[in-house]
Amino acid sequence: MAARTPRPLSGFPELLPEERVVEEHVVDVLREVFELHGFAGVETRAVEPLSVLLRKGEIDKEVYAVRRLAEVAEEGATDAEGSEDVLALHYDLTVPFARYVLENAGRLSFPFRRYQIQKVWRGERPQEGRFREFRQADVDVVDAGSLAPHHEAELPQVMADVFARLPLPPVVMQVNNRRLVEGFYRGLGLADPAAVMREVDKLDKVSPARVRASLVDGVGLGERDADACLRLATLTGEPGSTAFVEGVRAIGVRHELLEQGLDELAAVVASTGSVGSGERFRVVADLSVTRGLDYYTGTVYEARMTGFEHLGSVCSGGRYDALADDGRTTYPGVGLSLGVTRTLLPLLQRGLLRASRPTPTAVLVAVTDEEHRAASSAAASALRARGVATEVAPSAAKFGKQIRFADRRSIPFVWFLQEDGSSEVKDIRSGEQVAADPASWLPPAEDARPAVTWTGEPPA
Amino acid sequence: MAARTPRPLSGFPELLPEERVVEEHVVDVLREVFELHGFAGVETRAVEPLSVLLRKGEIDKEVYAVRRLAEVAEEGATDAEGSEDVLALHYDLTVPFARYVLENAGRLSFPFRRYQIQKVWRGERPQEGRFREFRQADVDVVDAGSLAPHHEAELPQVMADVFARLPLPPVVMQVNNRRLVEGFYRGLGLADPAAVMREVDKLDKVSPARVRASLVDGVGLGERDADACLRLATLTGEPGSTAFVEGVRAIGVRHELLEQGLDELAAVVASTGSVGSGERFRVVADLSVTRGLDYYTGTVYEARMTGFEHLGSVCSGGRYDALADDGRTTYPGVGLSLGVTRTLLPLLQRGLLRASRPTPTAVLVAVTDEEHRAASSAAASALRARGVATEVAPSAAKFGKQIRFADRRSIPFVWFLQEDGSSEVKDIRSGEQVAADPASWLPPAEDARPAVTWTGEPPA
Repeated sequence: MAARTPRPLSGFPELLPEERVVEEHVVDVLREVFELHGFAGVETRAVEPLSVLLRKGEIDKEVYAVRRLAEVAEEGATDAEGSEDVLALHYDLTVPFARYVLENAGRLSFPFRRYQIQKVWRGERPQEGRFREFRQADVDVVDAGSLAPHHEAELPQVMADVFARLPLPPVVMQVNNRRLVEGFYRGLGLADPAAVMREVDKLDKVSPARVRASLVDGVGLGERDADACLRLATLTGEPGSTAFVEGVRAIGVRHELLEQGLDELAAVVASTGSVGSGERFRVVADLSVTRGLDYYTGTVYEARMTGFEHLGSVCSGGRYDALADDGRTTYPGVGLSLGVTRTLLPLLQRGLLRASRPTPTAVLVAVTDEEHRAASSAAASALRARGVATEVAPSAAKFGKQIRFADRRSIPFVWFLQEDGSSEVKDIRSGEQVAADPASWLPPAEDARPAVTWTGEPPA
Repeated sequence: MAARTPRPLSGFPELLPEERVVEEHVVDVLREVFELHGFAGVETRAVEPLSVLLRKGEIDKEVYAVRRLAEVAEEGATDAEGSEDVLALHYDLTVPFARYVLENAGRLSFPFRRYQIQKVWRGERPQEGRFREFRQADVDVVDAGSLAPHHEAELPQVMADVFARLPLPPVVMQVNNRRLVEGFYRGLGLADPAAVMREVDKLDKVSPARVRASLVDGVGLGERDADACLRLATLTGEPGSTAFVEGVRAIGVRHELLEQGLDELAAVVASTGSVGSGERFRVVADLSVTRGLDYYTGTVYEARMTGFEHLGSVCSGGRYDALADDGRTTYPGVGLSLGVTRTLLPLLQRGLLRASRPTPTAVLVAVTDEEHRAASSAAASALRARGVATEVAPSAAKFGKQIRFADRRSIPFVWFLQEDGSSEVKDIRSGEQVAADPASWLPPAEDARPAVTWTGEPPA
């Protein structure tokens, strides 16, 4: 047998059990908060027809095509791209959700609130914070015909509630409005607003001077227009502050679409001023944000973790008015997507997030000898019946060895059956051992489940 | 825009929100029980190198190959099968887990107990209970070097605890032992035991007479050997009963491996006699069970739901001694895999399992007019802070319309803010409306979350 140790696949991260405890905790909190806000859980299949995926985005080369091996062998794959029924792994959860809404519109109640926590796949070059397989957690509100604007202020509140329950760095969510930006560019009379947006979108990585140079030399803008675009893109605000409106007006560009965008953004910023109550989650206007994917039409969001800005946005989204349309009805929506893997992996790799143990087990029931394993199993069943995660020692080794077995896994308690049928439980951290009844004993609440904690210095 | 209503993909089932509530409940129970038994959650990437998958099973034609679209376009796929680094979607969770154990052996504590609940993909022809994308829930215990046999009796207990908490039909788990069967065939001196096993494996679909004919005419067995094989395969037992041992001995075949298998199976059956406590989950010896996949070496399990036997096994597994081997150490294991999709979809499609509502929302806070939406949001926040799933009405329509909005989703309570700042809550089922304080009111426990119930007649 060709035995060997397999190596990890670059871009397809897997977690050790203690890291997975952290991820499970985060996913539990996400789900709990989403459900508290009345979002229904939806899951879509992992694959979509290639035609559905390519219609929406510009990232065709990053898509993973999926074919039965038998098919590949029979037909070759040269016609893979042309064929209507070629399947591909979804690269986000918004496009599949839009398809799901169209497919099931008659059986859903609108406005429809859904959350969706799933893996997605992109064939990008792996680097820190960028993976080929990763988990996203999305919330969206979709309505039939028209969507009330207050949902655009509601979603940041949902994410603020998520982050308030997680031991993560503080988050700043930047909000902008695509209509505002497009209206501004139209007001300037620019020929190719999309090209300008692409350059301005680099402001989080490239200096304003270089972006200005690209606008003039690359896109062909006049100096004054380039300056106006940069003045717009460098406007930011404080939570709740709509001072940016005056900032935009001061540039002197006028356009109907710009006015509409300004009103919309001002409304979102004004009603999210108190979101997050404090420094842990702040929502601010930032007029540089445009989002790469082309389906956003109004409000756009990006959020970064303080001290980890180099990871890029960990939570983004926006309003899309035309993503789902079946020819009779349009289903506009607004959504936010949290990059679970992007948020957690860098923190786990730096040892900043830790689980108190790599197993759910709170109690190990010792086995005196193999003939009495059934008695240990009965005690374990009694503990489980009251919600105590319990396993039975795998072998009737010396008690010292059984205690070390628990210690290696940070299992806090070891349970001993006495010859007279009574029991004792030892806290192996303190060494304290006391009489206990499996029908009534409970561990302290903080030991019942693995705890997840931030172990680093809080970033500035 | 080419707008149209998309159609479902055959074999890739998706659930409506109310059906997904049922599935989420089942997955929650699986996870809860697995964790109570001290299994750690592990998740593996969706893809494996094709070489890893093909080495283990015989199902190469059912595997989905995965390639970046860019790669397909550049290279064609004619060399897809030959290339070392071609990726494919995993078709079960056992092979990826064995690879995970080898890859991380130095960072795991053995015996290692893990559960894994994920989607898997097989390019099979879709039919009832058989899908191309479906969810499995696996529990395995893997040790380094040797694995104690008591784990083979432990796993049925874990699954019995799962089924005890779910509103599903009664389950019969059949247990057999591969060594027993192989030893029996060797004792008979059969030339091709695998060919015999394949025919015998059809006994759940084909009559004994036809299996006998295939053994004689197809495999070339003598009449007496065919009869002996059939006598073995039709031996079954009652929970806890090892009477099958005498039944096997009466056939008169002797072989060392047969004796070992008999001892092992008798031990598992004897110590699972009281599992499931009653008619809801029974573990019995059934000597026809062999399992198709070739990595099982000892105990094998299959479980069927009473009244839904035509779905085939909904929970199966076994002991594998040689699946994971890095050249220095072998990691034997034993596992059980529950087919979540296979179990639930047929019951959902028949309307036998229902959720009480398609949304987590327990309370809808009415909005008097859009100017006072913030007051409704504040009441909703106060309710959520104490764990009550709450959403705010999407529009300040007439109250009758807001109540109908809740009713359409079976949201049980609507919350009204009074002009004097007080609140009232209406149970829209009874019509009763009472004064309530968002800082202290709680819904009855049975309304807090959607309930999942069996709505059909219990099958005989």
